[in-house]
Amino acid sequence: MSELKDLRDELRAFAAERDWDQFHSPKNLASALAVEVAELLEPFQWLTEEQSRSLSDKQRCAVTDELADVQIYLIRLADKLNVDLVQAVRARIVLNAEKYPATIFKSSARKYSDT
Amino acid sequence: MSELKDLRDELRAFAAERDWDQFHSPKNLASALAVEVAELLEPFQWLTEEQSRSLSDKQRCAVTDELADVQIYLIRLADKLNVDLVQAVRARIVLNAEKYPATIFKSSARKYSDT
Amino acid sequence: MSELKDLRDELRAFAAERDWDQFHSPKNLASALAVEVAELLEPFQWLTEEQSRSLSDKQRCAVTDELADVQIYLIRLADKLNVDLVQAVRARIVLNAEKYPATIFKSSARKYSDT
Amino acid sequence: MSELKDLRDELRAFAAERDWDQFHSPKNLASALAVEVAELLEPFQWLTEEQSRSLSDKQRCAVTDELADVQIYLIRLADKLNVDLVQAVRARIVLNAEKYPATIFKSSARKYSDT
Repeated sequence: MSELKDLRDELRAFAAERDWDQFHSPKNLASALAVEVAELLEPFQWLTEEQSRSLSDKQRCAVTDELADVQIYLIRLADKLNVDLVQAVRARIVLNAEKYPATIFKSSARKYSDT
Repeated sequence: MSELKDLRDELRAFAAERDWDQFHSPKNLASALAVEVAELLEPFQWLTEEQSRSLSDKQRCAVTDELADVQIYLIRLADKLNVDLVQAVRARIVLNAEKYPATIFKSSARKYSDT
Repeated sequence: MSELKDLRDELRAFAAERDWDQFHSPKNLASALAVEVAELLEPFQWLTEEQSRSLSDKQRCAVTDELADVQIYLIRLADKLNVDLVQAVRARIVLNAEKYPATIFKSSARKYSDT
Repeated sequence: MSELKDLRDELRAFAAERDWDQFHSPKNLASALAVEVAELLEPFQWLTEEQSRSLSDKQRCAVTDELADVQIYLIRLADKLNVDLVQAVRARIVLNAEKYPATIFKSSARKYSDT
């Protein structure tokens, strides 16, 4: 049984019980997602990459909450658009494997140095 | 078996095969997530809420790809921070249920009108 | 005399007096800008377009602070990259005038309906 | 005479000539701003801070265009909300000077290490 579908159903019930679907248009959910992602980005903005690899417990807890919020709005938006997230990710991995063959990109990391 | 953990393992292997972990610091992954979410927001920016509820097939496909990209970077970032996304979401739902009791928020939708 | 250059100089002095230039790499300033813009987006996320056109005084004050923060980081980032913002905007307006001729786009608003 | 007010007037005329004010609700402009800022963040996402301090000419040109787009939507949004950007920034600088006294923050850079 799918855990993302379980969460989707729980979040669906949560919104229904509060009459929140009226606010949850895809346009609004996409904005809410952008707001939550920025809250996730915030604790990292002045850290060095190195520091970001070894957060304190307090920092890690705060970031965990934001990760959850992003996942929640992502599930809600996908639900409203009738998109199966797991299937969408699988399709994307297949595509990326073709686009970035390991043999070519391993040596050069071109995707990144090209930017 | 957990589908998010499956995807996490696949994405872990994908990055390892290409030597991309050097770029995937939490700081960078949080930025990448912000970039992908904005690509998801982009097709909605000039739509009315109503239009966003009934996307064309072409629009829906484009949005599906962006949803997948957001989910991918979210899984990668959670992995690098050793966070179990499903567990984090469950904890958040419990907290939100206490913060926004259905009996109070159903009638007023105060969370939203307060903004 | 240019007011944006005045502000740039003031903000430059402000950072120098606090030894903050070490944190203000273009990479970090671009992240900070994304964080501030999301704080600006936040009060609008659940409003209808109509509501967003008639904010309360309290909402308008909060938004004014966020507009200022975005402008501040934008000036800082442009300064670090040696970009003249006014000149860059003027060049962009010329380009946009060619890309979206008024005669064609007036009738159809195609730029927006195409999305 | 104020250069930001000049640009505001030009952008106002630009939108009016194309009948675009119908799309430029504050809610939509705030989203557009978020989208543009992410395009500005994109070229920096995988760079080290060091690399971001020394962009190639090609990278710098691309970033200049995005800086301009952000400034344009910021001017438009401030205009729609009747906010004087220069005045708002000045007020913010005064506030920040009180919040972060140079004598205290110079030695410790606490604002940043606290995050």
